[in-house]
Amino acid sequence: MDKQATLYHDVAGRITKMIDHGAFGPGDRIPSVRKLSAQLDVSVTTVLRAYRVLENDGLIEARPQSGYYVRNRFPARAAEPGISKPPLSPSNVSVDELVMKMLHDAKNPRLVKLGAAAPNPDLLPSDKLHRTMAALARRFGSRAEAYDFPPGLEALRIQVAQRAVAVGCTLSPDDIVTTCGTQEAVTLALRAVCKPGGTVVLESPTYYGFLQAIEALGLKALEIPTHPRTGMSIDALRLAIEQTPIDAVLVVPNFGNPLGSCMPEESRRELVELLAEREIPLIEDDIYGELYSGEERVKAAKSFDEKGLVLLAASFSKTLSPGVRVGWIAAGRFRERVERLKMATTLATPTLGQMAVAEFLAHGGYDHHLRKIRKIYARQVAAMAQAVGRHFPEGTKVTRPTGGYVLWVEMPAKVNALKLYEIALKNDLNFAPGPIFTSSKQKFRSCLRLNCAMWGDAAEKAVAKLGKLAGEMAKG
Amino acid sequence: MDKQATLYHDVAGRITKMIDHGAFGPGDRIPSVRKLSAQLDVSVTTVLRAYRVLENDGLIEARPQSGYYVRNRFPARAAEPGISKPPLSPSNVSVDELVMKMLHDAKNPRLVKLGAAAPNPDLLPSDKLHRTMAALARRFGSRAEAYDFPPGLEALRIQVAQRAVAVGCTLSPDDIVTTCGTQEAVTLALRAVCKPGGTVVLESPTYYGFLQAIEALGLKALEIPTHPRTGMSIDALRLAIEQTPIDAVLVVPNFGNPLGSCMPEESRRELVELLAEREIPLIEDDIYGELYSGEERVKAAKSFDEKGLVLLAASFSKTLSPGVRVGWIAAGRFRERVERLKMATTLATPTLGQMAVAEFLAHGGYDHHLRKIRKIYARQVAAMAQAVGRHFPEGTKVTRPTGGYVLWVEMPAKVNALKLYEIALKNDLNFAPGPIFTSSKQKFRSCLRLNCAMWGDAAEKAVAKLGKLAGEMAKG
Repeated sequence: MDKQATLYHDVAGRITKMIDHGAFGPGDRIPSVRKLSAQLDVSVTTVLRAYRVLENDGLIEARPQSGYYVRNRFPARAAEPGISKPPLSPSNVSVDELVMKMLHDAKNPRLVKLGAAAPNPDLLPSDKLHRTMAALARRFGSRAEAYDFPPGLEALRIQVAQRAVAVGCTLSPDDIVTTCGTQEAVTLALRAVCKPGGTVVLESPTYYGFLQAIEALGLKALEIPTHPRTGMSIDALRLAIEQTPIDAVLVVPNFGNPLGSCMPEESRRELVELLAEREIPLIEDDIYGELYSGEERVKAAKSFDEKGLVLLAASFSKTLSPGVRVGWIAAGRFRERVERLKMATTLATPTLGQMAVAEFLAHGGYDHHLRKIRKIYARQVAAMAQAVGRHFPEGTKVTRPTGGYVLWVEMPAKVNALKLYEIALKNDLNFAPGPIFTSSKQKFRSCLRLNCAMWGDAAEKAVAKLGKLAGEMAKG
Repeated sequence: MDKQATLYHDVAGRITKMIDHGAFGPGDRIPSVRKLSAQLDVSVTTVLRAYRVLENDGLIEARPQSGYYVRNRFPARAAEPGISKPPLSPSNVSVDELVMKMLHDAKNPRLVKLGAAAPNPDLLPSDKLHRTMAALARRFGSRAEAYDFPPGLEALRIQVAQRAVAVGCTLSPDDIVTTCGTQEAVTLALRAVCKPGGTVVLESPTYYGFLQAIEALGLKALEIPTHPRTGMSIDALRLAIEQTPIDAVLVVPNFGNPLGSCMPEESRRELVELLAEREIPLIEDDIYGELYSGEERVKAAKSFDEKGLVLLAASFSKTLSPGVRVGWIAAGRFRERVERLKMATTLATPTLGQMAVAEFLAHGGYDHHLRKIRKIYARQVAAMAQAVGRHFPEGTKVTRPTGGYVLWVEMPAKVNALKLYEIALKNDLNFAPGPIFTSSKQKFRSCLRLNCAMWGDAAEKAVAKLGKLAGEMAKG
């Protein structure tokens, strides 16, 4: 090794150590090339070469006009899961019982909760939201308690339309109907576009709330192979569409739950075009969209929608407040039908809640808040992935999401996630077992989803314990 | 006429005059017999005879252990409508378009709104509710913004269970699931008990929101003759059940909207027993239950339910806040199914809203508030009925509800309510036209519903105008 090489490896080693010891965390900017060169009294070229090594190692990333940043680190030990292989035909759904059991189990107050994908309460701007609410209540008095009939609060619809520009969508406030959270938006969308007994295409694994909605509406689910990094396979979808009559496709292109995959822009375009040819509606759930850990948002599938076939839905449950129950849907050509269904289902969306969210979006520093929580969630996801790598048995795989705050863990085949779940409960911790994320009872039996939002000492200990329990099961 | 008779007629005349001039309004207690006898220096017997005359005239009513009260006065001129005569077979429903048009029409800010059955904003305890909310927000911080998964907030379910005792129901908090208003409760109930394409029995006329829900769920509606005073005819229901397979009966026994009828206790018992024999679920919507103008509440149909077949639902939209979107359902043997459907439909009910309502019920003087608004609404309903009698054309009939705050008006057959509605809009006033309250397009074409909650000078002028317009149409 020449002297020059020794030098830049030495620089790279120093930085690596600092990252390893937490001096720089994921998302932090490390010193600029010029600055470090001055500090260490080495040439700019040496620092540049060192940074290139770290970049190649996946430890840092360059951001144009900005500098070098620590990347979210995923464990070397636990590999990334491969693409899923769901069964080829539509199935009736029945995850309800398991989901309701999970919900009731979660009432144990000692429980370390790695189950439901609730955001971290400490990362909700509740004080500010409550002050906003109080101010609006004073200003509007009883008008803040009146019915706000569909399509919902105009001030909120204006904010939603304005923000949609960032994902390439040109929406008018009139295109939007507000809802009691994303779950209502998705339910209304399914009811607006599906025939009774029809088939809905989903990612595999998929969010259990979708499966519950599909089950409750008497629809069928058809799951499509989904890559943990790039989302639903468009090729597999194309094949499925040729074989099976489809009423709708329901995807979460940004950090879909539980995989955390992010569909590339080109695939979104391809998806929209493929469905447009066949006049199949696409329901695009963007509930995690604002929680990206990278530099910018990928365009929404809705931005490629020329026929009004894409129904884009989201809420503020993961960023501002889950309890306020405020979401929305831009339903394209199904707008009117969705508005009527909204009225027939819940009549109205909470008035003061909508006002508070609209005000927060307009003047509350929502973007500043988002920048803060994005960074924290990204670190927590990386930290929990590391912990999974350390504590789970040999052969465990874990996702590398670029947004959101959940991890999907594939354990060795001998580990039964439902049995592990029962043992975990006895140890005062929970998680979401793999089988609730599919309509096919045989799939994901050794998988689980972890919520990283509440990362901290208790969660770290819980993951260690869980890994140990899984390890025992893997041997046994 | 003997001297004694002259004397008591004189006393009766004085009281009548005072009532006519508004010194005593509907619901007010007039002076006790003893007091008036002392004041006027006449015998107790004379006052008693005078009061008996006024009682016979329907001007006052005696309440045991309490005294004499001014009754709600209904117009002598406009008669009470008779029992409805809906078609005998189930129909597909399509009121949606008309209802949505109404909603959009109501956006004219100059409009005097006699349409939607919204409560009077001035009679909502919004300031107190907002103070309660602020206190809870301070106390619970971000916990007031967390998901509150089904069955919903325990503190609220406890309050609801406690209050149900007053209508003869023994409910446990565990029997109750909270919902986003009564509309969600009824939708969930329909979904829990009806087969696809099944038939739901309703009052005739019935609340259009029920028809919308039934339409949206692809169910059929079968309307049953309903008396404006005593509600659905149990005999007619019995006949209908023998002829048609029925999935559920949906009634509003207390001041059903739009008729304002109140089903007598014995009919409720009979209804529950009739349906129990055939294992048909009964959905009992009690949204107006607390707004009775009489002395006490009639027992709920649910109180006679021995088989868990009655699903009792209500909300706080008419008494505390429509905008807070907090309701509930006690779904009997369908409890678990309703809880799952709730989760699949809107995931959760607003957290802080539920907390505020629970707190108001526990410590906010809800009963005091109810006593106040009951009296006011009763006066307003009576006043508007009087105005209808004065201003509407000969032959107009109007209901005499004993609770709630809407009136149902039957105009002469020549008056087309939908045409009148369009003309009314041009005159900056609205109402709810009869045809939206039925699945049968041919019925109630000369009827309309008036909201009396906003009674005042503007409403009085609007009714006068409306009566004049109707009069022109009746002649034309």
